Amino acid sequence: MPNPKNETKESKTQKAPKEPKDKIIDASVRGKKPASAERRYYQSRKRQQAVKKIAPVKIAFLGGLNEVGKNMTLYEYGDDMFLVDCGLAFPDQDMPGVDLVIPDFTYLERNADKIRGIVITHGHEDHIGGLAYLMKTLNIPIYATRLTIGLIQGKFKEHGLLNTTSLNVVKPGDHIPFGGFDVELIHVNHSIPDAVALAIRCKAGTIVQTGDFKIDTTPIDGEMIDLARFAEIGREGVLCLLSDSTNAERPGYTESERKVGESFERLFAKAGNRRLIVATFASNIHRVQQIIDVAQSLGRKVALSGRSLENVVAIGTGLGYLHVPDGLLVSIDMVNRYPAEQMVIITTGSQGEPMSALTRMAFSDHRKVSICPNDCVIISANPIPGNEKTVSKVVNELMKLGAEVVYEKMYDVHVSGHACQEEQKLMLGIIKPKYFIPVHGEQKHLNKHAGLALSMGMNPKNILIADNGVEVSISEKEFRVSGNVPSGRVFVDGYGVGDVGSIVLRDRKHLAQDGLIIVVATIESKTGEILSGPDVVSRGFVYVRESEELIEDACKVAQRILEDCAVHHVHDWSSIKLKLRDEVSHLMYERTKRSPMILPILMEV
Amino acid sequence: MPNPKNETKESKTQKAPKEPKDKIIDASVRGKKPASAERRYYQSRKRQQAVKKIAPVKIAFLGGLNEVGKNMTLYEYGDDMFLVDCGLAFPDQDMPGVDLVIPDFTYLERNADKIRGIVITHGHEDHIGGLAYLMKTLNIPIYATRLTIGLIQGKFKEHGLLNTTSLNVVKPGDHIPFGGFDVELIHVNHSIPDAVALAIRCKAGTIVQTGDFKIDTTPIDGEMIDLARFAEIGREGVLCLLSDSTNAERPGYTESERKVGESFERLFAKAGNRRLIVATFASNIHRVQQIIDVAQSLGRKVALSGRSLENVVAIGTGLGYLHVPDGLLVSIDMVNRYPAEQMVIITTGSQGEPMSALTRMAFSDHRKVSICPNDCVIISANPIPGNEKTVSKVVNELMKLGAEVVYEKMYDVHVSGHACQEEQKLMLGIIKPKYFIPVHGEQKHLNKHAGLALSMGMNPKNILIADNGVEVSISEKEFRVSGNVPSGRVFVDGYGVGDVGSIVLRDRKHLAQDGLIIVVATIESKTGEILSGPDVVSRGFVYVRESEELIEDACKVAQRILEDCAVHHVHDWSSIKLKLRDEVSHLMYERTKRSPMILPILMEV
Repeated sequence: MPNPKNETKESKTQKAPKEPKDKIIDASVRGKKPASAERRYYQSRKRQQAVKKIAPVKIAFLGGLNEVGKNMTLYEYGDDMFLVDCGLAFPDQDMPGVDLVIPDFTYLERNADKIRGIVITHGHEDHIGGLAYLMKTLNIPIYATRLTIGLIQGKFKEHGLLNTTSLNVVKPGDHIPFGGFDVELIHVNHSIPDAVALAIRCKAGTIVQTGDFKIDTTPIDGEMIDLARFAEIGREGVLCLLSDSTNAERPGYTESERKVGESFERLFAKAGNRRLIVATFASNIHRVQQIIDVAQSLGRKVALSGRSLENVVAIGTGLGYLHVPDGLLVSIDMVNRYPAEQMVIITTGSQGEPMSALTRMAFSDHRKVSICPNDCVIISANPIPGNEKTVSKVVNELMKLGAEVVYEKMYDVHVSGHACQEEQKLMLGIIKPKYFIPVHGEQKHLNKHAGLALSMGMNPKNILIADNGVEVSISEKEFRVSGNVPSGRVFVDGYGVGDVGSIVLRDRKHLAQDGLIIVVATIESKTGEILSGPDVVSRGFVYVRESEELIEDACKVAQRILEDCAVHHVHDWSSIKLKLRDEVSHLMYERTKRSPMILPILMEV
Repeated sequence: MPNPKNETKESKTQKAPKEPKDKIIDASVRGKKPASAERRYYQSRKRQQAVKKIAPVKIAFLGGLNEVGKNMTLYEYGDDMFLVDCGLAFPDQDMPGVDLVIPDFTYLERNADKIRGIVITHGHEDHIGGLAYLMKTLNIPIYATRLTIGLIQGKFKEHGLLNTTSLNVVKPGDHIPFGGFDVELIHVNHSIPDAVALAIRCKAGTIVQTGDFKIDTTPIDGEMIDLARFAEIGREGVLCLLSDSTNAERPGYTESERKVGESFERLFAKAGNRRLIVATFASNIHRVQQIIDVAQSLGRKVALSGRSLENVVAIGTGLGYLHVPDGLLVSIDMVNRYPAEQMVIITTGSQGEPMSALTRMAFSDHRKVSICPNDCVIISANPIPGNEKTVSKVVNELMKLGAEVVYEKMYDVHVSGHACQEEQKLMLGIIKPKYFIPVHGEQKHLNKHAGLALSMGMNPKNILIADNGVEVSISEKEFRVSGNVPSGRVFVDGYGVGDVGSIVLRDRKHLAQDGLIIVVATIESKTGEILSGPDVVSRGFVYVRESEELIEDACKVAQRILEDCAVHHVHDWSSIKLKLRDEVSHLMYERTKRSPMILPILMEV
């Protein structure tokens, strides 16, 4: 029986004409000012006259939009704020030497007194990887489900934060009060157990943030996404939906995790007497469970290779998310004591990461595992965009060692953890939000997801493609970009957080491209007489022994400049350095068509 | 009517038991010595006793195996040698600053007096890109079809080689004599017109090398691959087939190029009054033709953006491979004088190359084209592995500017130029070679292609997975790895060919990861007294203004070491430098967990 409120909503949606020419609000379109949205808001207010004023809820995006990773969202109502997730992103090719990227916490520091806590949707790095850094800035209570807290504890231990932080276990169905907010947790399926979506209630209305999700009707832990609860909340009326856009380019449904288990059964049987090596994401506990189950059914032992995998298996087993029969697990050190047909090795490195266990196996650099033609390697993962080449390299090297490698999509050895288009539409259809903001994804994913909402008859004015740093104000009568907050990327390199910036990166890229030439001389400070040098030292430019003439010519150029300066009593060191840089650079480009970094160093005595 | 010779061959193939446990000969498997293949050869010779001795033909692979690109193959019979193709490869991520990679010509220089010429299968960079460099080493006659010669001429003009080289136009059906060899050209379909396969005859038998090919039954130029000729040659008896493995992972057939034209018709019509921008590979003349045809049918003008595209269109039009109606092409400078609905812009940059026209458009950096919401951009290409992220970036940026972007596979805006599995099998089936060597591809592609031959009943001992640097000897009675030849990668960086080697690359990567610290001081050479410094200069390490203390501490460490040495009369500069490097490196790692390159420079006065 449809409830009346819902009917009103539905009829509203139907009334709203589908206006293909009317663009979705796109706050990420460059040059777009919040002002115009504001004007529209006031115009519509004038038209609707005498609207009761309810303060809007504000959402500020600190990460996760127009990028993959670094998810972080700030909610604000009145004097209360709280955060959802604090993830990291992995560095791009154009950030050499950077270990990881975290959100900018400037805006949070400014509002420290208002922030009541943070809730984490699940334990993946792109949702928890920035937490340790956040805690050093802003020690607020953390709420998450049991496995997620377990994984966070593992991180905090490394950072020495265990005793100084407040970690609170919550479960689906629980409500967390953050001042004027009430946050309800709803169970969802994902490629890690214990993931939740959030129903966020305040006076302005209810906002549903899905977190990462998929609809798995036959999940490994037996608990399907709580669609009934989503539907109930939808029936109560939802102001705005923030939904996972990762797979918005993929039509249809994401397959069940169980499909992978069936593939393992088939492939393990086919492997016969050969040794099995399965690479997958450490955090995919259900995948690991399925490998363990099939291994046990075939009388094979299981060994683990890779530190993150060992960690997750220890935490997962300890908390009861992973069930490992006694005696099944053997140490990787014992792996060669078992005949091939009695062994399954689970390993990290499914993305071809340079230091990972699988990569070391492929390049014959693993302490315990030597790949041979009697090995069957299954890569139970798809390459994350950008990793295609490294994964290919690992596959090629494994094959060169004679192993069979199963890595193609057709063998169903991997399924995604994210909803495809039909699931995304189903979520939109049962939540029936008044407003929609697609999240988690690059611009292309957000655009596609918005297109799905449009195709379901949603009013384009009620859909907003936001961007990191955008603050949105939402109430029944209002849906607009209301401001910008400081956001951005903070680079972590070794112990350094934020000390590698654009200048350092620019220098690193320059050095990588063409190397470096140092021109060094000792000068008598009064006369400008050359006391020693000039010497020319290069790194990463040419193989010096084969280019002696070029280096000598550079020396001669430097000598001429310095002598000239001495004769003409030029003592302005910076202009001499500039001249050295220009002329040596010119010589190098003319002779080699390369532009190494030129570093003149003058020592005064 | 099957000819008797063919029947013998067929029955042989059928007799050969399918031996799944018997491995394909894999010369790329590390540690495998040619000796074992040799032993097997002599054993089989013993068994077969009194075999008439016919000298084998030798094939040496100088590039294109276990890699994509840099294709080059050397044939040798008696005192005669000739080459097939001389391509380049694009640098990997781990070759910073390298412009392109070409084959090592050492072995060719050694055998210069035997090499009769080179034949080129088609005009793609991975088949012609190394020619200019080869000509500077070894000026041999070049044979290729008309368009291919046209494209080579364009290159040679830039290198000033036009007047000193011998370029010879040949056509399908022609025979090129290279001493004891006769090379026949056979027309094939590919993503560039005028591509050929080769039937190479010598006393040892016939070898068919397909070059890059696909089977297009409805090609744009009306000329289907000459399957009849392949079948004839197959019926005459083929000793060995070398066939294109690029798409060996893809089941089924590659779609016809015409399919893309149909998509253009649909998408151009759907674009309505919007401006159209189509990005594709410059060399895909048939693709360009189809864009031109659809543009004309809709009354739109066509403008070109990108130097390589302008070049290819000029050459293609001049030689009659591209038909452009008078008045259809307009200069890119005039593009803004036409209303959006009258314009199609064809552009380079379908791989998201940083300096390409499309990338410049996406980042609002194009001189003439400003992307706006009234633009519909079609990316008529798939990302080449490794380019996924750069293409995504361009798509995202175009969308941020409000353009619609069509880039997904489902819209059929691109088809491959390479044969898929069914076509590869068809080629094997009509050639019916005695021996098979899959070429053009990484190990995984070669393995899959070999697997296809196996699935057709081929004897695994008659299939060989070779590697760059491998020399294979082939006759009716012999199929073995008979030696190794110098092969490898030569890096081209600016004017330098081969002057960037592994040491320079290692330094570049080190500099890119953690930057550089220079410790410099002037020392009195006799006393060891410090006359100036020590100074510490860094680049790409930390932002110095925020790390003054760290830099000062490094100075203090250096000062202490130098003073110690002076006190103890240590004048061994290299051991002082080593000490400086170690201790400063240690300090930096302890404080930042980074390992910058440390460069101590001591100036003696």
